Amino acid sequence: MTGKVNFASDYCQGCHPAILDRLVETNMDVCAGYGTDERSAAARDAIRSAFGCPGAEVQFLVGGTQTNATVAAALLRLTEGIVCADSGHIATHEAGAIEAGGHKVLTIPNCEGKIRAEDLARSLARWEADLNHDQEVAPAMVYISQPTEYGTLYSYRELKDISEICRAHGLIFYMDGARLAYGLASPEHDIPLEAYAELLDAFYIGGTKCGALFGEALVVPDPTICPRLFSIIKCEGALVAKGFVLGVQFEALFRDGLYFEIGRAALEGASIIAKALEDAGIEQAIKSPTNQLFPVLTKEAASRLLEKLDMSFWDELDDGRVVYRIATSWATTKEEAEMAALAIRSL
Amino acid sequence: MTGKVNFASDYCQGCHPAILDRLVETNMDVCAGYGTDERSAAARDAIRSAFGCPGAEVQFLVGGTQTNATVAAALLRLTEGIVCADSGHIATHEAGAIEAGGHKVLTIPNCEGKIRAEDLARSLARWEADLNHDQEVAPAMVYISQPTEYGTLYSYRELKDISEICRAHGLIFYMDGARLAYGLASPEHDIPLEAYAELLDAFYIGGTKCGALFGEALVVPDPTICPRLFSIIKCEGALVAKGFVLGVQFEALFRDGLYFEIGRAALEGASIIAKALEDAGIEQAIKSPTNQLFPVLTKEAASRLLEKLDMSFWDELDDGRVVYRIATSWATTKEEAEMAALAIRSL
Amino acid sequence: MTGKVNFASDYCQGCHPAILDRLVETNMDVCAGYGTDERSAAARDAIRSAFGCPGAEVQFLVGGTQTNATVAAALLRLTEGIVCADSGHIATHEAGAIEAGGHKVLTIPNCEGKIRAEDLARSLARWEADLNHDQEVAPAMVYISQPTEYGTLYSYRELKDISEICRAHGLIFYMDGARLAYGLASPEHDIPLEAYAELLDAFYIGGTKCGALFGEALVVPDPTICPRLFSIIKCEGALVAKGFVLGVQFEALFRDGLYFEIGRAALEGASIIAKALEDAGIEQAIKSPTNQLFPVLTKEAASRLLEKLDMSFWDELDDGRVVYRIATSWATTKEEAEMAALAIRSL
Amino acid sequence: MTGKVNFASDYCQGCHPAILDRLVETNMDVCAGYGTDERSAAARDAIRSAFGCPGAEVQFLVGGTQTNATVAAALLRLTEGIVCADSGHIATHEAGAIEAGGHKVLTIPNCEGKIRAEDLARSLARWEADLNHDQEVAPAMVYISQPTEYGTLYSYRELKDISEICRAHGLIFYMDGARLAYGLASPEHDIPLEAYAELLDAFYIGGTKCGALFGEALVVPDPTICPRLFSIIKCEGALVAKGFVLGVQFEALFRDGLYFEIGRAALEGASIIAKALEDAGIEQAIKSPTNQLFPVLTKEAASRLLEKLDMSFWDELDDGRVVYRIATSWATTKEEAEMAALAIRSL
Repeated sequence: MTGKVNFASDYCQGCHPAILDRLVETNMDVCAGYGTDERSAAARDAIRSAFGCPGAEVQFLVGGTQTNATVAAALLRLTEGIVCADSGHIATHEAGAIEAGGHKVLTIPNCEGKIRAEDLARSLARWEADLNHDQEVAPAMVYISQPTEYGTLYSYRELKDISEICRAHGLIFYMDGARLAYGLASPEHDIPLEAYAELLDAFYIGGTKCGALFGEALVVPDPTICPRLFSIIKCEGALVAKGFVLGVQFEALFRDGLYFEIGRAALEGASIIAKALEDAGIEQAIKSPTNQLFPVLTKEAASRLLEKLDMSFWDELDDGRVVYRIATSWATTKEEAEMAALAIRSL
Repeated sequence: MTGKVNFASDYCQGCHPAILDRLVETNMDVCAGYGTDERSAAARDAIRSAFGCPGAEVQFLVGGTQTNATVAAALLRLTEGIVCADSGHIATHEAGAIEAGGHKVLTIPNCEGKIRAEDLARSLARWEADLNHDQEVAPAMVYISQPTEYGTLYSYRELKDISEICRAHGLIFYMDGARLAYGLASPEHDIPLEAYAELLDAFYIGGTKCGALFGEALVVPDPTICPRLFSIIKCEGALVAKGFVLGVQFEALFRDGLYFEIGRAALEGASIIAKALEDAGIEQAIKSPTNQLFPVLTKEAASRLLEKLDMSFWDELDDGRVVYRIATSWATTKEEAEMAALAIRSL
Repeated sequence: MTGKVNFASDYCQGCHPAILDRLVETNMDVCAGYGTDERSAAARDAIRSAFGCPGAEVQFLVGGTQTNATVAAALLRLTEGIVCADSGHIATHEAGAIEAGGHKVLTIPNCEGKIRAEDLARSLARWEADLNHDQEVAPAMVYISQPTEYGTLYSYRELKDISEICRAHGLIFYMDGARLAYGLASPEHDIPLEAYAELLDAFYIGGTKCGALFGEALVVPDPTICPRLFSIIKCEGALVAKGFVLGVQFEALFRDGLYFEIGRAALEGASIIAKALEDAGIEQAIKSPTNQLFPVLTKEAASRLLEKLDMSFWDELDDGRVVYRIATSWATTKEEAEMAALAIRSL
Repeated sequence: MTGKVNFASDYCQGCHPAILDRLVETNMDVCAGYGTDERSAAARDAIRSAFGCPGAEVQFLVGGTQTNATVAAALLRLTEGIVCADSGHIATHEAGAIEAGGHKVLTIPNCEGKIRAEDLARSLARWEADLNHDQEVAPAMVYISQPTEYGTLYSYRELKDISEICRAHGLIFYMDGARLAYGLASPEHDIPLEAYAELLDAFYIGGTKCGALFGEALVVPDPTICPRLFSIIKCEGALVAKGFVLGVQFEALFRDGLYFEIGRAALEGASIIAKALEDAGIEQAIKSPTNQLFPVLTKEAASRLLEKLDMSFWDELDDGRVVYRIATSWATTKEEAEMAALAIRSL
């Protein structure tokens, strides 16, 4: 649109060609509504099989904020809150959707976008020791994002530690996987897929930012924890009449392992750009092992770079320098990444 | 999917070829997120221009329940309710989405799916005369659907009468146009497009059931009545990251008047089938001037017909007969309609 | 205040002298806050003992609307609704408090203020048979009031029948006992106290209209159905810092059986007035066996009567006559009732 | 109850004798319901006159959490949040009542329980500068408590500064005066009463903790900002049938200036105890100019003191010492304060 190469975000282009092809092929097929069609069923099975959770409830929703709100509505009672990092998406960028559903977001300080098991444990211990906690919001769910809003990744050890704390204290452990494909494609990712289903009580597999036109797959390994989920999805305005459009997309994403490869181009692009930043001596505010880079730039350098690339403004530092976010995506080509690298090296 | 011809609903197939072509053509174009892209802007302008409301706020949402809930959230205060027909979609088939947002649905008896101005006036007069009405929910919005859930249409006169009552009593007048294209294509439709923008305070133009993959266009002719609408859409989980996918679709629907023609095939199909019903002496529970037919059948006849067509069960009468709904759509071909007509005539 | 005798309502005077005495006696005693004091504990025990439910959770709240909203919040999930008579207090006179908490009120026609078991059963059967009911609000609780808003009483048989239906369909059965004392004092009342605890899942014993300054006692025979109830009460703004003021009042009401006698004066007064109406040939719109009378009067007769008594306007009939409500109370004296009877006889 | 002198809180005893006398005197008077009686009217007028706001809406509610939730419901739209100190009552001890009503509490660090104008200004500026703030909760109201949860007081200058920022940015400025009487009785209080009505958009005058049995008076100087307030109070379950019980109490509190004197005994007691702490060399965690003291004690000293006085546990410091809260009240006698002083001096 702008002539410049897009690194503003990973949701600025349509869908992966394999998905588009399937949408075109199946366009005039007659399907049952509301996700009760055969393609949605096949997509559900493919996800259950990939994550090793044959009994899981899988539902396709449209977007992340909606999915997070639905999970809160389905799994929490009044007076129960969600513990998350102060940088968590539900805490900052969902216009109060969790509160609109009646629940408080209880933040703990983030550590490069992640929560630390020890901080969580301390926060729960403090609450439990508080004599007046019956007049306070109870921590009842833990929310993490994988990768986080800063592109960082939880390790298997970290996920397990948080999960153990949640189980010990009776909290629900929920993961927002809006960009999960970029996490799975990272060399630093060390979590077996089955571990997600085992350690979490609910999670969603992001489609919108990972090559679909739109859509997120909510997975609840043990469906007995969320009675009336389908109705709650409807009540949240999250039930799509043409649910088969979601089914077709997730079927394509989980056929032949596309979802596990779709992040690769993004990671390769990110690595080319990261190398350029390093060579140019440009510091990063956070070093993410996934598809997001956070160069710290002087305002002049930022202006010059913005002539060549679309990036997102992220933060202004006390010393006057600015942080931008460069996001690669499933659609990023090697040429685009190299163009960005060249622009960076020429600063 | 079933081998049978689909008349179960108008949301069982993908999208109109003109829309699909545009989605394919524009798939890899880079666009700004959250509906701030140029195609969404163009689609907004096309809608403003078609409905003669240059200053209107136009927002694209995903589905009808979501749009209705968002309108309630944006335009009502606590203790304010929505008056609608007892057959209204918000009263029956949205899993309590309006109540989940804190508002009561105040039903009045439907007359073939419509509310009558005199019933509305009487209901408002009764509320106003009630000495205790400060301890009751206040009627603050009137909801209608056009066409209604039974496929019937409000006339210009009827719309105007209800609008006048709303204005006189300070109520917001809102229209759910989930199937609006089928209304516009009906020979009985007599409402100038500009009248919608003039007589209503808010309405949505249905995409999902009218040829789009998904999407509804919410129109608020006077945007000063809904401050923070964009944020409220986000809070309702109704803001789509790849908003341009909605923009592209509505741009296609409102380019060259497609939206005003897209219902024609459905209406032609319905007319072929209606003729067959008449010829076969099969009564209809409601005679709709749009794309829905409601044959009253013996259970045996219904079984036989269901072998050839997919229809939706609608109601069982006291005399043991059953009502089915036959819905044609933008995708219904003349051949399909004639096949249905033949099946009916052979009963 | 007006010089006229009060029959406008049963909440127009302070509290029963026995309660006032205890409030005065205990005024400067130091008590723990939030209902954790010894008097509240004693009052809880007295209630548990009177209703034969030793394991019940008993909580004191301030008013009826608040108690109803708290029960809904504590016992329902999103998308679950409450079935009640269309004359039920939650359906008509609580300014949408149930909906504000996110739940739909599903009305069925009242029969002199009561719901009939067969209507309930039919309504549940219809819902269960509905193929689309997952997209609808689920009936999950049944609300009745005893006595009803029209002063009528459920019999033991009726209560049992409704309870059986609720148990068979997995619904919570809840009773609003705002005026329970007037029911208990009625010769027509035939329900053993323990039956309330046995047949209901939750109920409240009205204080405000039955001789207390304010306060309602919520009883949940099996507390495992409402985890976090105390916190939910706090969240609903229904937790009183000086909870002992409620404890003192309910201790007085349930010491020496005061609650079971407190309605007697009201019933005697009502009977004197009912006799006068009968003698004067004045029809009643509903014949209530408790403390409310509903004379049907010409407008002229009503005017004349209003010069002598305060009554509440109830309804206007099609023939131009009007229905007023005469409510006696625990504070009604024989003299006042006779004055009313005389005024009626002189019409 | 315990034999020990009560300093646990200021809501552990009934009501001031002047109020009790009036409740007794007026007990059998007949009054209109729901606060429409003459005593409530007189109490409203007395408050309007005391605070110099003749056109104000004054409503009596039962408790603080309820009043705060009602104000949020009446004055905020969806997606709007409340800025307050992280120690603010709504942020910590209301079991999520604000969130249950759909609104986020946006905390800024407290400074001895207060927010500082410059922190507020900075926080608003940051929000306004944020390019994505339409997808975030908007700061729309500022909540302060006077005195704060730590007993500290805003000065006239501080109140004015915050008010100016609120007006400049279009935010509602709301004050929780649960313990206002103790603030008004403090020698450090320098705010003219009219200034409260002038600088604030809404505030409540605490009754429950300031000598009433229960009750808070909500004041909205310009009632046009809160249409449907009465209905919203009903919907929140905060409307009391026997509203005259609140009217009688506030009439007594505002007759002959009782409210402005009722805190004096508490302040005198606090000053006796503060002197003893100073003499005993016991540090206070926060030095409050009102009725709360926060001695820092070794665990041993705390145990010994708890044998003589009831105090509330407040905090544990890193060095193992503990902070307790000693709260005096309108009911604290000189003898009780001296007994506490003696116990402290004997540690």
